[in-house]
Amino acid sequence: MKVEVIAIGDELLLGQTVNTNAAWLGDACEREGWRLERVVTIGDGIDAICEALVSAESRADLVIITGGLGPTRDDMTKRALCKHIGVGMIRDDAWAEHMAARFTSAGLPVIQANQDQALRPETTVALPNPRGTAQGIWIENAETRGVTVALPGVPFEMKGLFTEEVVPRFRQLHAFEKPRAFRLHHNILTMGKGESLLADSISQWEDTLAARDLSLAYLPSPAQVFLRLTATGTDADKTRAQLERATAELLDLVAPLVVSAQGRTIEHEAAHLLSALGQTIAVAESCTGGGLGADLVSRPGASAFYLGSVVAYANSVKVSQLGVPEQLIATHGAVSEPVARAMAEGVRSRMQSDWSLAVTGVAGPTGGSAEKPVGTVFVACSGPAGTRVERFQWGRSRARNLLRTRRTALAMLISELKGLENA
Amino acid sequence: MKVEVIAIGDELLLGQTVNTNAAWLGDACEREGWRLERVVTIGDGIDAICEALVSAESRADLVIITGGLGPTRDDMTKRALCKHIGVGMIRDDAWAEHMAARFTSAGLPVIQANQDQALRPETTVALPNPRGTAQGIWIENAETRGVTVALPGVPFEMKGLFTEEVVPRFRQLHAFEKPRAFRLHHNILTMGKGESLLADSISQWEDTLAARDLSLAYLPSPAQVFLRLTATGTDADKTRAQLERATAELLDLVAPLVVSAQGRTIEHEAAHLLSALGQTIAVAESCTGGGLGADLVSRPGASAFYLGSVVAYANSVKVSQLGVPEQLIATHGAVSEPVARAMAEGVRSRMQSDWSLAVTGVAGPTGGSAEKPVGTVFVACSGPAGTRVERFQWGRSRARNLLRTRRTALAMLISELKGLENA
Repeated sequence: MKVEVIAIGDELLLGQTVNTNAAWLGDACEREGWRLERVVTIGDGIDAICEALVSAESRADLVIITGGLGPTRDDMTKRALCKHIGVGMIRDDAWAEHMAARFTSAGLPVIQANQDQALRPETTVALPNPRGTAQGIWIENAETRGVTVALPGVPFEMKGLFTEEVVPRFRQLHAFEKPRAFRLHHNILTMGKGESLLADSISQWEDTLAARDLSLAYLPSPAQVFLRLTATGTDADKTRAQLERATAELLDLVAPLVVSAQGRTIEHEAAHLLSALGQTIAVAESCTGGGLGADLVSRPGASAFYLGSVVAYANSVKVSQLGVPEQLIATHGAVSEPVARAMAEGVRSRMQSDWSLAVTGVAGPTGGSAEKPVGTVFVACSGPAGTRVERFQWGRSRARNLLRTRRTALAMLISELKGLENA
Repeated sequence: MKVEVIAIGDELLLGQTVNTNAAWLGDACEREGWRLERVVTIGDGIDAICEALVSAESRADLVIITGGLGPTRDDMTKRALCKHIGVGMIRDDAWAEHMAARFTSAGLPVIQANQDQALRPETTVALPNPRGTAQGIWIENAETRGVTVALPGVPFEMKGLFTEEVVPRFRQLHAFEKPRAFRLHHNILTMGKGESLLADSISQWEDTLAARDLSLAYLPSPAQVFLRLTATGTDADKTRAQLERATAELLDLVAPLVVSAQGRTIEHEAAHLLSALGQTIAVAESCTGGGLGADLVSRPGASAFYLGSVVAYANSVKVSQLGVPEQLIATHGAVSEPVARAMAEGVRSRMQSDWSLAVTGVAGPTGGSAEKPVGTVFVACSGPAGTRVERFQWGRSRARNLLRTRRTALAMLISELKGLENA
């Protein structure tokens, strides 16, 4: 099944909102065995929306419009749909009443803009939205069984409607058809080698993929490369077996670089190992301001392993809250091997955790010296067998330096935990 | 000037990478007075790229391709450009040598994949990239003065090439033309009223905008709404005056909701006020894991006001590192008004800051009770005049709950600091 997304909203083109919906829909489609082939982002204009609809419907089995269903005047999607299918608007009285009741029970006034949310193009089907005031809209072409849906742009409303309404309805509509092709993926997270050196080191093996209906993609981002292996075939079992064989080969080839063989994100892998091994962790941060702790709690279940952090941005806090000797900072500087070590050991002893991480660095863009230029970072990992400290030299971008520091610290922890796991 | 972006990469369609380049380019174009009208995202396929190029070049003055210039086999952009303009590849020997020297000086081997980075379509102009191994590519249509450029997908390389190469060259090419229209924007950040109620409350005023060549857009996201006012005109001074007048009117209408009259993000506004007033802050976090501190250090200059945080995820850490009485937690629970208050006062006194923020809540998706369901959060702000605590009830999504908590805490601080500023 070919899918196209039309993302609507001036805010996406003016750079005020990053379109995260498209990536989510791409992933959700892959899970269904559907293929997102194109995303078009356009502004809130009726003609542009109609033009994009004609073009997308000529290629795709499912066209998903996101955005432009809100109650304010810059929202044009419903009017464009009326023009596109040549109908007027009807009012959904049940939805209007339902919303009025919701607003009243929340102690809010019922206003015209919200009542207009009950309008939709005639001949279309409403998709109820328990998370917001805009219903989704479903338009089915009886002849081609092609479908166009319009969903709100607010991510959690869009996701709910896609999962609960669009997927089961579209599956049902095409239930009797034979699937055209299976596409299965396996991801591996690697760190420690850049994209081109990594590719060079496995190039002979990569040459064998095409003949086996396999392909490999490199997804680099600061400090890491995700490898995505894809198998395509018409037989589900054979395709899965093909993918498993190639995954094992690849894991073997890049073994020392693998951070997550299951393709987990680095924070997910760290959380997974800590939970699985029943270990606890505490964190001491300076330049990252708390971001390393925030990474650890980004998924549910963090209370099983994460005790807390001391973020010692000021030197006085390193002394008072982590017990770093003042003399150590005076002699070596706050960004130094001994201070990173003292921070890690201080927080581990104060919070009585099994493990601790500490980071201290010059995030930039200013504050560097000849000896410790912008991008200098020390990462310490302390555990039952002692404390390991490493020095890294990143670049000049603050945001990238902070991200690389967080990822590198978690990778150091993961490598220590894997040692424990294999011991 | 009309601009279109063609974003290339299977990873964008498979949901493994969010396309942040498009938003950045939209904003950068607006600053030049150019208008990004469309973004098309497609996979790494030569035919799809060529088709998108033909279509975009028929509409836009500047077409920007991002992605697909890397050294690995899934990168198709240069081959597609050769097909599109009907030429072969040439090798840029100077670039090949330059890269070989860079790799050698970094102690890395020089491999074929990197040498292939020196290839580009004949008749095109190379844009040097000091941040990476892929040059940008500039293609100029002498007749129409239309331009197509190809830039790497890695955000910081793309941004550098756009700013340092594409903008000055494209400006130069069209230097003698009269600008068609000025579009100026002013943003205002509001909190405390949802999009539709906000729109309803200013609807009479909004009716007057169209006649004055003004428009208003609503950009809602968790806990906040950005308002974007746009003025359009052919005279720069008149357009600016029109925008300033309307901005003053709007600020007057929504005064109690305004968090940043200058359209700063909430973390930027908090940092700005703390710096301007010479005040310091410390933070005590539970559910947010350190994210509130990370918000405060996301921009340079944080050491002027941010001392640090204690992230007390475990109750034992609330007691040992913040001095919250054990009895208080036993009686009221860790998520409670008195514990939030004790956390804020504890961290303020331990770090000797002028101000402090504390948050404790049930982030979810599990862990709620009848009395304190998932989404219950207490936020405390402590300052020279005392401690204020508020209770909030968010929804069931962990990520949204954490984001709303961070934003709401910063908004509480901003409102206190504004009181200080006006005192």
